[in-house]
Amino acid sequence: MGFFSKDIKTMDDLFVHTLQDIYYAENKILKALPGVIKKVTDPTLKQGLTAHLEETKSHVERLKQVFKLHGADVKAVTCPAIDGIIKETDEISGEVADKEVLDAALIAAAQAVEHYEITRYGSLCAWAKQLGRDDCAAILHKTLEEEKGADQKLTTIANSKVNRKAAS
Amino acid sequence: MGFFSKDIKTMDDLFVHTLQDIYYAENKILKALPGVIKKVTDPTLKQGLTAHLEETKSHVERLKQVFKLHGADVKAVTCPAIDGIIKETDEISGEVADKEVLDAALIAAAQAVEHYEITRYGSLCAWAKQLGRDDCAAILHKTLEEEKGADQKLTTIANSKVNRKAAS
Repeated sequence: MGFFSKDIKTMDDLFVHTLQDIYYAENKILKALPGVIKKVTDPTLKQGLTAHLEETKSHVERLKQVFKLHGADVKAVTCPAIDGIIKETDEISGEVADKEVLDAALIAAAQAVEHYEITRYGSLCAWAKQLGRDDCAAILHKTLEEEKGADQKLTTIANSKVNRKAAS
Repeated sequence: MGFFSKDIKTMDDLFVHTLQDIYYAENKILKALPGVIKKVTDPTLKQGLTAHLEETKSHVERLKQVFKLHGADVKAVTCPAIDGIIKETDEISGEVADKEVLDAALIAAAQAVEHYEITRYGSLCAWAKQLGRDDCAAILHKTLEEEKGADQKLTTIANSKVNRKAAS
């Protein structure tokens, strides 16, 4: 989460620190995702993750807009949770030999990333509204819906193709 | 995730390693949650987390049942993602002075834990079904529904009480 500096006194401070946390996370995902896409075999999964890479670029831009609207500096703070999830993804990429089992594992890893983002954007949307920042909430809500959509697509791919093949 | 040993060759291996990952996570949550409950001020939040502590105990027992049904040893593997989320929760407990802002931050931290569990149990349920282990899937599904319920309760508390007070 990264909101551990001693200057968190108000909901506004908590909101800004959590923005910094998810800004760090989105940038980490942007760097990690191309490597994951290369490791994937299933074409539908590859296509889905490639589309999400483009969405992730726009999520970073939207966060910059929110920082600006809120009068805060664009800044990242280290987030151990996303670092852990990405570390696991990197490690499994080198450990699972079977391509279809690897696809299933990478879907699960990508869904862990999506769920981390869903929970953080959910908190940020709620806090923005409570702080009277409906303008920020509207931007954050767009990304929240895209993260939920990405997670649902991954579930559909997992259930319909990849896992079934791997278990056969 | 912790499924990084070189013996993951099949979907069955992936299923067992992910069981070991979430078994580690549930046990970490069991140890961390009482400390979080002590730090919370809002009585509804305190009550909700206390009820979830009891649920968590049954989740650990259910995982033992699934290991047994599947003929696997009850074993944990380190999961850096949950370690990161819990580390953040511990750190924020000592950093935010205002009780209502702290409650809001702890709700967000607890929801990050819930979402991690939701994504892992979701994958495990899907994989259990694909492996023909409907008996395991049914047990895992009960826990999945309780994790979703816990997350929804936290959202309700966040929206109705704690955050609104803290922003005022």
